[in-house]
Amino acid sequence: MANQKILIDAFGADFPDQIIEGIAIALETVKDVELVVTGNAKRIEEVLSDKTVDRERLEIIDCAEVVTNDDSPVEAIIKKKNSSLSVGLKTLRDREDVGCMISAGNTGAVIAGSVLILGRASGNDRPTLLTFLPNDKGGFTCLADCGANVDCKPHHLLKFGEYASEYSQKVLGVENPKVALLSVGTEDKKGNAVSKETFKLLKESNLNFVGNMEAKTALSGDVDVIVADGFDGNVLLKSIEGTAKSVAGRILALLKKHASKNGDMAFVKKAFDELMELLDFNSQGGAILLGAKKPIVKAHGSANSQTVVNTVKQAIKICKSGY
Amino acid sequence: MANQKILIDAFGADFPDQIIEGIAIALETVKDVELVVTGNAKRIEEVLSDKTVDRERLEIIDCAEVVTNDDSPVEAIIKKKNSSLSVGLKTLRDREDVGCMISAGNTGAVIAGSVLILGRASGNDRPTLLTFLPNDKGGFTCLADCGANVDCKPHHLLKFGEYASEYSQKVLGVENPKVALLSVGTEDKKGNAVSKETFKLLKESNLNFVGNMEAKTALSGDVDVIVADGFDGNVLLKSIEGTAKSVAGRILALLKKHASKNGDMAFVKKAFDELMELLDFNSQGGAILLGAKKPIVKAHGSANSQTVVNTVKQAIKICKSGY
Repeated sequence: MANQKILIDAFGADFPDQIIEGIAIALETVKDVELVVTGNAKRIEEVLSDKTVDRERLEIIDCAEVVTNDDSPVEAIIKKKNSSLSVGLKTLRDREDVGCMISAGNTGAVIAGSVLILGRASGNDRPTLLTFLPNDKGGFTCLADCGANVDCKPHHLLKFGEYASEYSQKVLGVENPKVALLSVGTEDKKGNAVSKETFKLLKESNLNFVGNMEAKTALSGDVDVIVADGFDGNVLLKSIEGTAKSVAGRILALLKKHASKNGDMAFVKKAFDELMELLDFNSQGGAILLGAKKPIVKAHGSANSQTVVNTVKQAIKICKSGY
Repeated sequence: MANQKILIDAFGADFPDQIIEGIAIALETVKDVELVVTGNAKRIEEVLSDKTVDRERLEIIDCAEVVTNDDSPVEAIIKKKNSSLSVGLKTLRDREDVGCMISAGNTGAVIAGSVLILGRASGNDRPTLLTFLPNDKGGFTCLADCGANVDCKPHHLLKFGEYASEYSQKVLGVENPKVALLSVGTEDKKGNAVSKETFKLLKESNLNFVGNMEAKTALSGDVDVIVADGFDGNVLLKSIEGTAKSVAGRILALLKKHASKNGDMAFVKKAFDELMELLDFNSQGGAILLGAKKPIVKAHGSANSQTVVNTVKQAIKICKSGY
């Protein structure tokens, strides 16, 4: 479905005005995109008032409530029926002309809402959060699950692999994606009770399963999909983020220490600017929640207007792929 | 016991000659150290033949067998009774004058042997492997477990915290070490089934437990001890190693790309040389196996002569601490 509308939950993120500004930029820069936006209509109109926006391609659904990061996820979905998130999920569920939703709100509430409001895809009992690791080959490696699900059973992990592999193929255009299982060694028998059972299921599946992998090669780009329990996937994702920041900071400090003259740091700055782009986890847009009836793009809570534009492009790609 | 001897398993590592050369250097450079070495006596004598070594402080125990990395850990301990590892462990167990053992051999076999030959410390059923993360404050953060134990129960994790905290205090001299639990969020209730139960046990313990931590702050140096199941600890350790290497490689490539003249890279080289020292996981020596009747220093399989010297110094420190 090439021309589906994209729904944006404009509230619940750290900076709602940034989301609204991003909506204006997306309408201006992304050809033919049609957006449905949920949130406080008064505030949305205020922020848009000084902008030139094609109102033919923008629909605003006024919502009285907001789910915040302090809300308990399930409670927020059950009690705040008029939140921008809940109304967004209902709209995504009920309207055929809406293909995908974007939210930068409470991650737990988005996941809970995907099950309680949108509903699970058939044959699945746990939606998975897929993220993208910027790898050494200049591409992105899919990691599923990156934190939505802990205490997973082997059949959940198999599903995560299936969803991520399908996404890699259909949306990212990877032919026959290589799927690996995160473990403590590359040998077939290395792992814990759940990973050893999962290994067998993946081996028997139709996926292009290449075996166990260690966290030290997560950024190598040797595989397209990394399957992990959400606890381990979260540890992997966050340690990559933290280590990248720590190491970059240490190198910069050392370069400053060893630089002998003022001009020395000019090219260093250029190199670090480019590094930050390479390591930007948000440059692909957001994480993707797969396994509910329609896909949801989960942007970072601190999303700015550029993030909104990136996620809109990502959502269009997903809709066009027929995922 | 200040003057205990250090036992070194000279075989089973990737480069036994390097271990033997390290023994010669340790005898020459580490004041008063007395070493007991297990392994192929003929080869040890050959490598030592052109070196000046104080034989008064060196005892060699000839062993006909070697445990290799291809051996199954438990089987190797049961079947190869005359290996340098098995004889070393028996010697460590039986001789009061030997305080600590160093091995760079098969990690699984060292762990299996610590239980089957050396025996568990009272009240413990799982020895833990403690490693040291080079943190942003220039110190080292203890991580237990880093891969010896998967599928841990909460009471195992509590023990890991107790061992690591005691080590941090007695051997590293940290007053009242801060202990944190690796989880997927900093909030008290974040985690999986095992970590949530472990949180309660740590909270009730006598440890200076500061709560849950995320992998992204593992290198911050904000805590002294990180407690984790060996699966997660291994993911954390290896992703730190892999990411550090990946990010350093990317920065170096970018610096080369943006350097405009030959002289530009001279100070970059200095900075990277210093970085490699900062990030050297082996500069502290090896990982420490705690929870058996005596501590074992587990050096990397690719240990060189300098690693041996570092681990000997580490072993002496452990013996002197009364751990």
